[in-house]
Amino acid sequence: MPGKDSDINGSKPASEAVDVLVVGAGPAGLMAAFALARAGINVKIIDKRPVKVAAGQADGIQPRTLEVFKSFGLSDRLMKEGTQLHVAAFYNPSKGGGIELTDRVPDVTAQDTNFPFEVTLHQGAIEAIFHDNMRDMGVEVSRPVVPLSIEVDERRVEDPEAYPVRVVLRHVGSGDDDEDNGRETEIVNAKYVLGADGAHSWVRKNLNIAMEGEQTQYVWGVVDLVPDTDLPDIRNKCAIHSDNGSCMIIPREGDKVRLYIQLDGKDIIDGHGRVDKTKAGPDMILDVARKTLHPFTIRTPESYDWWTIYIIGQRVAERFSFHDRVFIAGDACHTHSPKAGQGMNASMHDSYNLAWKLAHVLRGTARRSLLRTYELERRQYAQDLISFDKKFAKLFSGKPYSELNLDGVSHAEFLKAFQTFGGFTSGLGVQYADSDIISLRYQHLAKNVPIGRRLPPQPLLRAADSRPVDLHDFLVSDTRFKLLVFTGDTRNPEQMAKVGVFAKAFITTPKPEPSSSFFAEFSSSAALRKVFDIIPISSEKKRTIKYNAIPKLLWEHWSKVLVDDVEMSGRRGGRAYEAFGIDAAGAVIVVRPDGYVATIAPLDGISVLSSYFRAFIKPI
Amino acid sequence: MPGKDSDINGSKPASEAVDVLVVGAGPAGLMAAFALARAGINVKIIDKRPVKVAAGQADGIQPRTLEVFKSFGLSDRLMKEGTQLHVAAFYNPSKGGGIELTDRVPDVTAQDTNFPFEVTLHQGAIEAIFHDNMRDMGVEVSRPVVPLSIEVDERRVEDPEAYPVRVVLRHVGSGDDDEDNGRETEIVNAKYVLGADGAHSWVRKNLNIAMEGEQTQYVWGVVDLVPDTDLPDIRNKCAIHSDNGSCMIIPREGDKVRLYIQLDGKDIIDGHGRVDKTKAGPDMILDVARKTLHPFTIRTPESYDWWTIYIIGQRVAERFSFHDRVFIAGDACHTHSPKAGQGMNASMHDSYNLAWKLAHVLRGTARRSLLRTYELERRQYAQDLISFDKKFAKLFSGKPYSELNLDGVSHAEFLKAFQTFGGFTSGLGVQYADSDIISLRYQHLAKNVPIGRRLPPQPLLRAADSRPVDLHDFLVSDTRFKLLVFTGDTRNPEQMAKVGVFAKAFITTPKPEPSSSFFAEFSSSAALRKVFDIIPISSEKKRTIKYNAIPKLLWEHWSKVLVDDVEMSGRRGGRAYEAFGIDAAGAVIVVRPDGYVATIAPLDGISVLSSYFRAFIKPI
Repeated sequence: MPGKDSDINGSKPASEAVDVLVVGAGPAGLMAAFALARAGINVKIIDKRPVKVAAGQADGIQPRTLEVFKSFGLSDRLMKEGTQLHVAAFYNPSKGGGIELTDRVPDVTAQDTNFPFEVTLHQGAIEAIFHDNMRDMGVEVSRPVVPLSIEVDERRVEDPEAYPVRVVLRHVGSGDDDEDNGRETEIVNAKYVLGADGAHSWVRKNLNIAMEGEQTQYVWGVVDLVPDTDLPDIRNKCAIHSDNGSCMIIPREGDKVRLYIQLDGKDIIDGHGRVDKTKAGPDMILDVARKTLHPFTIRTPESYDWWTIYIIGQRVAERFSFHDRVFIAGDACHTHSPKAGQGMNASMHDSYNLAWKLAHVLRGTARRSLLRTYELERRQYAQDLISFDKKFAKLFSGKPYSELNLDGVSHAEFLKAFQTFGGFTSGLGVQYADSDIISLRYQHLAKNVPIGRRLPPQPLLRAADSRPVDLHDFLVSDTRFKLLVFTGDTRNPEQMAKVGVFAKAFITTPKPEPSSSFFAEFSSSAALRKVFDIIPISSEKKRTIKYNAIPKLLWEHWSKVLVDDVEMSGRRGGRAYEAFGIDAAGAVIVVRPDGYVATIAPLDGISVLSSYFRAFIKPI
Repeated sequence: MPGKDSDINGSKPASEAVDVLVVGAGPAGLMAAFALARAGINVKIIDKRPVKVAAGQADGIQPRTLEVFKSFGLSDRLMKEGTQLHVAAFYNPSKGGGIELTDRVPDVTAQDTNFPFEVTLHQGAIEAIFHDNMRDMGVEVSRPVVPLSIEVDERRVEDPEAYPVRVVLRHVGSGDDDEDNGRETEIVNAKYVLGADGAHSWVRKNLNIAMEGEQTQYVWGVVDLVPDTDLPDIRNKCAIHSDNGSCMIIPREGDKVRLYIQLDGKDIIDGHGRVDKTKAGPDMILDVARKTLHPFTIRTPESYDWWTIYIIGQRVAERFSFHDRVFIAGDACHTHSPKAGQGMNASMHDSYNLAWKLAHVLRGTARRSLLRTYELERRQYAQDLISFDKKFAKLFSGKPYSELNLDGVSHAEFLKAFQTFGGFTSGLGVQYADSDIISLRYQHLAKNVPIGRRLPPQPLLRAADSRPVDLHDFLVSDTRFKLLVFTGDTRNPEQMAKVGVFAKAFITTPKPEPSSSFFAEFSSSAALRKVFDIIPISSEKKRTIKYNAIPKLLWEHWSKVLVDDVEMSGRRGGRAYEAFGIDAAGAVIVVRPDGYVATIAPLDGISVLSSYFRAFIKPI
């Protein structure tokens, strides 16, 4: 155990070897630690705060994040505890003075999701979902613990057996969750380190990674409270533009609400450009809100759940990794305004992107080159995020259009921006670029499934019992690549002949005659199944299909043979081939472990798949 | 505590006073005990078996039962543990010999449910849901305990304060769940007793209630196993008619399957007309199945989960109660064939029907006359069930039609019966007759909502946040009558005036001027809310509705104001008024605590509602 022979006794500090050390237990760090632990990776996570977040902080969860939680089996609790936002309501100046309702529109513009809404829940409750599920796997956050130094042995960064990162930690006192009491140092030798330690990231600074971008002039106050108000949209997300400033309302779990209120910086910004919290408080923020909300009223509550004031910064780190041995994620990489609810989501998606890649490299099933795609994919995303945020923050903080202010922001202009950015703010429209792991060549075989984006859901049936399922039910976050084998019509002998040949490529023992199948290089069917999950999807009809006519090499269990037909109740389904743009010849869609479409191949395209995977996967 | 001063020491037996004693902890008894405990009633439940059911027994759960479980918040676990049956597949003799697939149709014909399928799960797992949820309320089954005598003091049956039923119990040994070890007697003085003690009911016999009906000649064998077979419909419900007999396949949780196989009675029925289990076993049953399934094969498994053989009896008890102080429910009232999966469902619906009535009478919020409706409603149902069962069993056990057997049962004939009985077998089409609590007069105000049947689900939105909900989400089993106030268009001043007048009828303090409102007779708003839950449903649109414009007297919480409009995602909703046949003038639908439509009234019909409720509800 660490800390037993500590420097307090003059002896050598305790040392520990871990596969991955995660610094920081906010959403980015917890997602990483949870996802790695779930993948069976030896992970340690530390945090400098003595206790967990109890209230406040981030609270918005986008549709894509809900999908990811679902892929881990964690969405039920989130849905139970959180509030759903279906409506974005817009208030603007009325002719009679004060504000009036202009419009109510869907809060989520993108509709190809099973979660066409946002969920809000305070950050502590979201983190608790990770804490509880990690605890079941024996992983807990060590706290309060701060890193003292980090060194990377650059000679050994390419050695798969090496632990080239040495981090010295200090246990700074007894927190609620800390078993290692006392002021003790500890040495951690790690294969990989993730700095998920926030906007002022210690890891980032120690790697000399600069932030690019600047501070803005926008100052916002935030209060969380249970409101007593006559505003009829208090349970909707509201974007309010008044002649007395802007305000955003975010309904929260239970009867709570969060208000974001634009403040005049000059009274509360000190000489160093920082917020002077002694000059403002929640009552003052609510007083400003009251002017914006007029003629609607809101009473001063007996107490506030949480409040803060901040200045928006818009910055991206120049690099996201050091020798692909130390990475940064979340606020350590990018800071921006919170109003579009992107921060916590972007942070979790950073480490979700990284976790499966680390898991494969650590298990020896992928080359280290795979790790390069983390920065490639997530830094581009962060830059897009800042660029979006600049436009959105400007529109949101701008004065409303009126006859007296012809340069102001009109509702039409704001709504257009809101909807244009919908794909982005929902997390559903994120596009990863062509790379070792994104290959665009056969896009035409499933022309409506953009390679490099997350695969949309689609209602389907299980062939054996016609039970309605969603394709997303099968895209579980188990670090496996999913080979969706669209067989075409399984009554057609020609298609079945192709399916038969395709299936043979997955014979591992006895070794088939020399073949070009990458999959045959695996030592056993069990080894193959650790990296790939194969799911056949027939375009036959539910009334005739025989699930057991599809070669057993292509399914693990009868429940994983699917058919594209309408539910017995006639409600949904039967449009997957059409929706995806797959014709009668079929196709194979490769979905990455994180749900993104990696590539597409023809049904007789074992060689295409083989060369795709040979570039970064190592047979075991 | 009972048993402390037992007869072993020569002292008087322990005695206990309870509101309701339930005899028998099968599905009927557990539903009663659970529903009563949930309603806050003091209930005791005993069972003669030393341990819980571990395997076998009943296993089919119909859509209506799923709805009831949902209304108690228990459906998630059932759905997680059980298997869904969406398809009924029919196999019939093929020209080449053996059987072939004739048709696959929806297993549930009725479609106006959110559960358009059956769920199967072994009885022990279903009972465990009740056990676990009762334990959280401090109620556990006392076992093994048998009743020795039951006496009803007929002079006191109408006295609401009396405990007129005296039952002597004997604790017959130490079972797993028994805290009262030893052979001890105990006296229970109960206000009410429910005999849910099965086909050979001790309670029924001691009340001298006869069973009407007869034994049939049909003998069936049942085996539960994990099958190894090439039958492509092994995961569908299958009705198989072959020239070698009939067979039914019921997929079960996990990879299990139940087979029902028609047997030739002459080898295994003894001289007393009873099954001689020494002459038959699961291998013998499976051998018979094998002949029926040919040319498909099924291997003999290493072990069976459960098996049995039975002769179908078709009987109904002549009465269901004794002075409305002792009741019988479940198999104690009716026995029939198990193949349409009715037994466990009918049993649970018996006690679900009784529980809320007992709760109201015991609390003093309803007259004792309410209890008469139990037998009225459930005995009619049981008779319908037997009548259905006779027809269905005959068709199912009959020889299939062929050119050699022109009198045989054709597929078309069987399918027609299967679908005609669909409303019945799903539990959704049950119709309770006109009575004190079913009043048909204003049927025309919601002409598509049959009074006396369970209210169908309907997608709606919450007015405050446009969150999609289902009307069934609000029909929770909390013993309250639900007043669904269809207000019409809340932008229409005329409708709003009517809504305003309607709302005033619910003012309890200060008492309004002399009014005909029954609701005003309650002592307080809180007392009123113990009996009634009011849910306003506007036909206004989501983009304009102000939830807080609807009088606060008509809603407990902002989340209970509904609007009939399409979801923001455009998927569903907006058809409740149309589907229910309610016009622009609105209407009030009264839903009973068990989800059945009790009556309908005009929006200005406080006097109609008042006289309806005065007949059996007592203000508190």
